[in-house]
Amino acid sequence: MAASDYRLLTFAAILLILNGPLRGADLPKSKPATMAEILAASHPGDWRPLDPENTLYLDLVAGRVIIELAPAFAPSHVANVKALVREGYFDGLAVLRSQDNYVVQWGDPDAENPQAARKIRNAKKTLAAEFDRSIDPTLPFTRLPDGDVYAPEVGWSFDFPVARDPKSGKTWLVHSYGMVGAGRDNPADSGGGTELYVIIGHAPRHLDRNVTLLGRVVQGMERLSSMPRGAGAMGFYEKPEQRTPIKTVRVAADVPPSDRTELEVLRTDTATFQALVESRRNRGEEWFKHQAGRIELSNVPLPIRAKSPPNR
Amino acid sequence: MAASDYRLLTFAAILLILNGPLRGADLPKSKPATMAEILAASHPGDWRPLDPENTLYLDLVAGRVIIELAPAFAPSHVANVKALVREGYFDGLAVLRSQDNYVVQWGDPDAENPQAARKIRNAKKTLAAEFDRSIDPTLPFTRLPDGDVYAPEVGWSFDFPVARDPKSGKTWLVHSYGMVGAGRDNPADSGGGTELYVIIGHAPRHLDRNVTLLGRVVQGMERLSSMPRGAGAMGFYEKPEQRTPIKTVRVAADVPPSDRTELEVLRTDTATFQALVESRRNRGEEWFKHQAGRIELSNVPLPIRAKSPPNR
Repeated sequence: MAASDYRLLTFAAILLILNGPLRGADLPKSKPATMAEILAASHPGDWRPLDPENTLYLDLVAGRVIIELAPAFAPSHVANVKALVREGYFDGLAVLRSQDNYVVQWGDPDAENPQAARKIRNAKKTLAAEFDRSIDPTLPFTRLPDGDVYAPEVGWSFDFPVARDPKSGKTWLVHSYGMVGAGRDNPADSGGGTELYVIIGHAPRHLDRNVTLLGRVVQGMERLSSMPRGAGAMGFYEKPEQRTPIKTVRVAADVPPSDRTELEVLRTDTATFQALVESRRNRGEEWFKHQAGRIELSNVPLPIRAKSPPNR
Repeated sequence: MAASDYRLLTFAAILLILNGPLRGADLPKSKPATMAEILAASHPGDWRPLDPENTLYLDLVAGRVIIELAPAFAPSHVANVKALVREGYFDGLAVLRSQDNYVVQWGDPDAENPQAARKIRNAKKTLAAEFDRSIDPTLPFTRLPDGDVYAPEVGWSFDFPVARDPKSGKTWLVHSYGMVGAGRDNPADSGGGTELYVIIGHAPRHLDRNVTLLGRVVQGMERLSSMPRGAGAMGFYEKPEQRTPIKTVRVAADVPPSDRTELEVLRTDTATFQALVESRRNRGEEWFKHQAGRIELSNVPLPIRAKSPPNR
C-alpha cells in the first residue's frame, strides 16, 4: 500500500493502520500512538533529503546553522540570497540583533555607512516584496483541521507552514518559530535579503504578509535562539563586541560533500505526517491527563533527521 | 470619567476617546494609535503595583528575575512555593534544563538522591493539582474577541492570560511565553513547586490543564530564555558545571525596601488595555502594510513599568 493511498482516510483509520505493528503488550488499545512510535514506524519514502541547491550553511564559531530555502514562495528573494551568499556577502558580517520572544537578525553592521558598507557585486540590494503568492492547483497543501486565529486556512506546503485565503486566491508562508525572512525598512520593496531574521519566540503572525519569508532553520536553531539579548532598542546590540561574528554562509551545493550535513525532512504530504499531527492533538504519553484534541499550526513539529543511511 | 465607564464601549469608540489628545498634525486621522501612544496617554489608575507578598525575586549572578504569583488560580501551589522560598529551599540550587522553544526549569539537581537531596522543613513536597478552577462571578474576565484554537473563550483575569469553558464552568491559566508552572512526574498530584519551569518558546498550549501554572515572569525573562540549551534529553544539562546556580529566591515582602524592584502592571480591565489590544490587532506603525485585524492571546503584550513616581 503506497503512502498516497492513505491520504483520504480519517486520522482514526490511519492510526489503526500505522499502529498495527506497534501494539505490543505494553500499549493499552485505547492509547493514542506517540510521535516517537510514529516516526519509528515511518517508511524511507516518508522522508526527502534537503536539496543542496536550496540549503544554506550559516557557520558560526559555535557551529553550523542550516536553513532550508523556500523557492516556491519567494523565488526572487531565494535567488538573490543565494547570489549574495555566492559572492561572499555575508562572510565576516555579524548577528546584530537579538530581541527576546521575537527575532535574531544578521547582516552588515556598517550597512548605513556608504564608505564602510559591504559592497554588493552582482546580487541586488532590494527586490519587489514577495509577501504572498497565488494559490496554484499544483501547489501541495496539507490542511490542519483545527483552524487558526489569523487565516481562513492553515497547513503545510512543501513542508513549510503556510496559510491560505481561498477568497483572495492567495497563500503565504507564516511566521512560526524558526522561520527566516528578509528584513526591510518602511517601504514594502526595501528588503532583498542582505539582512535576514529568524523567529525565536511565540509566532508573531501579525508579520505575515508584511515581510518576505524565504526559508526556515532545520538544524542549529538553538545557536541563534540562545544568543544573549541586545540591550538596545529592538534588541540591537549596543557594542560591536557583543555581536556574534559570522564565519561564512554557503550554499550546501558549493560545499565539498565531506563537509556537508546530510539531513532529511519528514514529508508533510504523507500518512505518517498526518498520524504525527494526530499524535500531537491527542497525546499518548502517560504524563498527559487532559487531551487538547486540537493543535495550533506553530505547535506541530516538522521532524528532521540525519540522512539514512549516512553517506559518511 | 472612570476607567470602568469605558468597559461597554466598542474598541472604535474607545480609540476615539483615547486618541483625542494624541492627534497632532503628524498623525493622519485614519491611522490607528500605536501601543506607545496608548501607553503614553494612560492614567495612573490604569496601573497597579505588584503585591510584594505575591512577588518572587529569583536572583542569579546575571541579575534578577521577577515572578508575579497567581493565588487566584493556584492558591495551594502559591502558598507552598512561598513556604519553600521562606525556608531557603531554592537558595544555592540551579537551573537544570533549557529546552529550545519549550521550557527552562530549575530545582534541586540531587532531587532523586535521598542522601543529597535538599531537605524540606515545613513546606510540602507534593500537592493536589490545581489545573483549573471554577468560574466565579466575582472573578474578573476581559475577553479577547478573536477566538482561540484551544479553548472556547480566552482573555485575561487579574492580568494573567486565561481560558474559560462556560459549559464546564472551568477557567485556567494558559501556557503563554513567560508563564511559570510547577513541574511534576506522571501522577497528576506529584508536583508541588519544588521544581519550577518557565515557557521560553511558542505557547505550548497542549500543556494547559495538564500542569499547575502559578505565575509569570514580569521582568528579567531574557536571563532565563537566553540560557544555553542543554544537550541531554529534554534539554537537561549533561554536566553540573553547565547549570546556572541560583543565588537566592525571596518573597519581595521579605526583602528590605531598598533592595526591592518596584514595578507596576497595566490593568487588563481598563479601557487603556482594550485600546492596546486594538493597537495590536491593527498596527498604526508605518512599517505595517497589511493589518491582521485579529490577534492571538499569546501575542498581546502585558506591559510592565517601573513604579511611578519612583520611591528611591
